[in-house]
Amino acid sequence: MKIAETDFQAWMGGVQSRMEGVLARLLPAAGIAPARLHEAMRYATLEGGKRVRPLLAFAAGEVSGASPERVEIAAAAVEMIHAYSLVHDDMPCMDDDVLRRGKPTAHVQYDEATALLVGDALQSLAFQLLSEHRLADDPQQQLDMVKTLASAAGSRGMAGGQQIDLQATGKPLTLPELEFMHVHKTGAIIRAAVLLGASCGEISAERKQHLDQYAKAVGLAFQVVDDVLDYDASTATLGKTAGKDSKQGKPTYVSAMGLPQARQFAEELRAQAHAALRGIGAPARRLAEVADFIVLRKF
Amino acid sequence: MKIAETDFQAWMGGVQSRMEGVLARLLPAAGIAPARLHEAMRYATLEGGKRVRPLLAFAAGEVSGASPERVEIAAAAVEMIHAYSLVHDDMPCMDDDVLRRGKPTAHVQYDEATALLVGDALQSLAFQLLSEHRLADDPQQQLDMVKTLASAAGSRGMAGGQQIDLQATGKPLTLPELEFMHVHKTGAIIRAAVLLGASCGEISAERKQHLDQYAKAVGLAFQVVDDVLDYDASTATLGKTAGKDSKQGKPTYVSAMGLPQARQFAEELRAQAHAALRGIGAPARRLAEVADFIVLRKF
Repeated sequence: MKIAETDFQAWMGGVQSRMEGVLARLLPAAGIAPARLHEAMRYATLEGGKRVRPLLAFAAGEVSGASPERVEIAAAAVEMIHAYSLVHDDMPCMDDDVLRRGKPTAHVQYDEATALLVGDALQSLAFQLLSEHRLADDPQQQLDMVKTLASAAGSRGMAGGQQIDLQATGKPLTLPELEFMHVHKTGAIIRAAVLLGASCGEISAERKQHLDQYAKAVGLAFQVVDDVLDYDASTATLGKTAGKDSKQGKPTYVSAMGLPQARQFAEELRAQAHAALRGIGAPARRLAEVADFIVLRKF
Repeated sequence: MKIAETDFQAWMGGVQSRMEGVLARLLPAAGIAPARLHEAMRYATLEGGKRVRPLLAFAAGEVSGASPERVEIAAAAVEMIHAYSLVHDDMPCMDDDVLRRGKPTAHVQYDEATALLVGDALQSLAFQLLSEHRLADDPQQQLDMVKTLASAAGSRGMAGGQQIDLQATGKPLTLPELEFMHVHKTGAIIRAAVLLGASCGEISAERKQHLDQYAKAVGLAFQVVDDVLDYDASTATLGKTAGKDSKQGKPTYVSAMGLPQARQFAEELRAQAHAALRGIGAPARRLAEVADFIVLRKF
């Protein structure tokens, strides 16, 4: 196990540092007018996070034989949607958070109006990237990638999940309601990351089905683990305000089912993710490792 | 002139009522979860405005022989980008406006968080529409349409123009600076409306060039006339708070060059728009009429 772990960590570090370079290249330079907006877009996107969605896109690209030069663009588009959602989610009218990834949130570092525009412009840039680079041999397949990301981001995906989250604050949710919220709020974009990565290569309908099941399990596992970590990790480790969700009266898997059961549920979802990959076999190795990383991470 | 005017008005009314039906059909039903978000998206988009961008898209579609069934989808996508920008622009951290099209603004009617998500989700929906319907025979041409709208909406288009606008408040701008702001803030999406309408059919590179020049003149004329109307119209006629820009210390064409000169400039831009269409001839008739409507309107 020791060797495999090291191999995965090297791969993960490679994708993460590659993505840092790709995002830095694809974001408008801070010197281009309007400079303040471009500087803030870079602030909100660079040096950030674990890059879980790009990891998923690259791992899924290995299933379809996608070229890394294509996957990195698709992964950047997904990551920009994710970064925009964090900027807007942190704003005073939403979660009103001041710390993200150990740095002041965008509206604190700049101002609210700039943060609003940063999110808006990052979303536009994501779709610009998906349309201005050649990402699939067949342009129709690439149009389908645009559709996948747009519907994942929209009112029946991520933005809809945020709305459900807003309305849920202070109310106890049943487990099915909690799952419905997270399938939208975080699950949709995680699914898009997997599908877009795979769509940069050739993928059969059957394998796509397996990837879809994998993505569903992993997306939910990610949120369950987030709730567990939010409950018992320190602010310093997380780089964001810990225990905030439960203090704000937001329903979490820990509050809904208890800590040991939430940990157990994450394990079950990890097993489901592995099971979904069985029909793919060896090319799905990285996806299996990413699922392990998502569930076993301590930050 | 009387007959031509009546014919144009009938055409305009036809496009406007058609768009109302198209938008009502393309927006998620208010009953679909999350219902509050979908209801607010419809509130912000339906029964609204002159539909100038759809008028431009339909008129440009006549130049390229585009089918109305395609143009209406492209026009709806552009209109959703426009509607999202109004919702975000009205928010307290931006222009802090309470009245839009004679109705309470979205954040007043609902709440700030919902308004934020309405804008976010409308932007996603615009790109979903451009990718999930067949809008051009060649999928690559359709990908180019996605790129045109995405770059027009982004940090080097509309969102960038908003940022310049923010930073300009309270400062006198030179005329070139004012033009730079408006080319981004409103011009980019107006250009996208023209190009997307035409791209639903077959358009030569030369005609596209003419349309581009037309769109540049019309986009700027639209803003100059807006400034003139904002200066001398009453709140009741405009359906929004009049004289607000100058009260907020925002630079306008009226403050930068004086009222008679601003009126004169709008006339010059109208002449430029007509001149750009000369190389196209008869199929550009509606575009010429839309330019007249934009400059001669009283609301």
